[in-house]
Amino acid sequence: MEIDKMKTVLRRTLNYNALTFENDAEHSYIVAVMSMALKEYANSDVDMNRVIPMLLVHDMVEVYAGDTFAYDTKGYTTKSAREAKAADKLFSMLPEDIGSQFRDLFEEFDTMTTAEARFANAVDRIQPILLNAYGSGGAWHMNQVTQEQVYQRIAMVKDVNEELYFAAQELIDTYFGGNNEL
Amino acid sequence: MEIDKMKTVLRRTLNYNALTFENDAEHSYIVAVMSMALKEYANSDVDMNRVIPMLLVHDMVEVYAGDTFAYDTKGYTTKSAREAKAADKLFSMLPEDIGSQFRDLFEEFDTMTTAEARFANAVDRIQPILLNAYGSGGAWHMNQVTQEQVYQRIAMVKDVNEELYFAAQELIDTYFGGNNEL
Repeated sequence: MEIDKMKTVLRRTLNYNALTFENDAEHSYIVAVMSMALKEYANSDVDMNRVIPMLLVHDMVEVYAGDTFAYDTKGYTTKSAREAKAADKLFSMLPEDIGSQFRDLFEEFDTMTTAEARFANAVDRIQPILLNAYGSGGAWHMNQVTQEQVYQRIAMVKDVNEELYFAAQELIDTYFGGNNEL
Repeated sequence: MEIDKMKTVLRRTLNYNALTFENDAEHSYIVAVMSMALKEYANSDVDMNRVIPMLLVHDMVEVYAGDTFAYDTKGYTTKSAREAKAADKLFSMLPEDIGSQFRDLFEEFDTMTTAEARFANAVDRIQPILLNAYGSGGAWHMNQVTQEQVYQRIAMVKDVNEELYFAAQELIDTYFGGNNEL
């Protein structure tokens, strides 16, 4: 029931219907599924059996720490501290071995030290681009996010997989070019 | 973007806030996480690396077939046919190997022929009980679901794990007993 609160943590991204903000449960579901569907773009050494649980866990601490918008530079200065405190609280409610597993996956995602974490991060960064490009794009517009900022956000994707990177770039260019062909 | 439509498929279960119906993306997220958190209740032969993807996939066909309420006996007479048609449409959009994997997981969940599928089904049946018991219980009330019907729904959980079964039973009894101690 604590993790169920993910449904009430709202992100800045508007859902396709443009009527609701995406919540953390929805987001975490979609990125986990995307990682499965995009498996062919992961290096052969990426263990999907760790990527999927990592994506399910990666935003859980936000039930206490709240969502930090990807383009909120001020929020990012306190993000680590807020999330570490939230991790202490949330993961200690679980049986010790499960709590440790969740915490390790969360930290691995954040530090991006493994091939699994890098692939998971790439998927996590691409997903809002889909919603912005195919949906209303309202989140970028409302928050005055620039094309350059989105480029920076996905820069790390290029090292994960060039095809994925260029596909994401095309969506960004289409959106900012005002081209509504999608 | 097709699977993103899971966010718009509403179940009969009310979320904890009692303001929104749970959608399929939220539900699938929570059951996948529950399977991780409840791993100690799975038999040692259950491979969690198959349970988690199975739970992420198990309701996907509902983007076309719609949600069939667990206590809708009329809806259940057409469920298989509707969902098989939806599976043909949805899973054929994916690369062939991924589409096959998704379809196999979906069918395995439904036929309950493996230990993984039985554990996944147990979790899937327990999750709405949590929301009904800890939340408003509005979904059972609105749909005139009886205590006996909920018992029948979780009967299979007993063979998966007795501890889980009795815990679920306690929540059901508390709810129907009008005991609001939770």
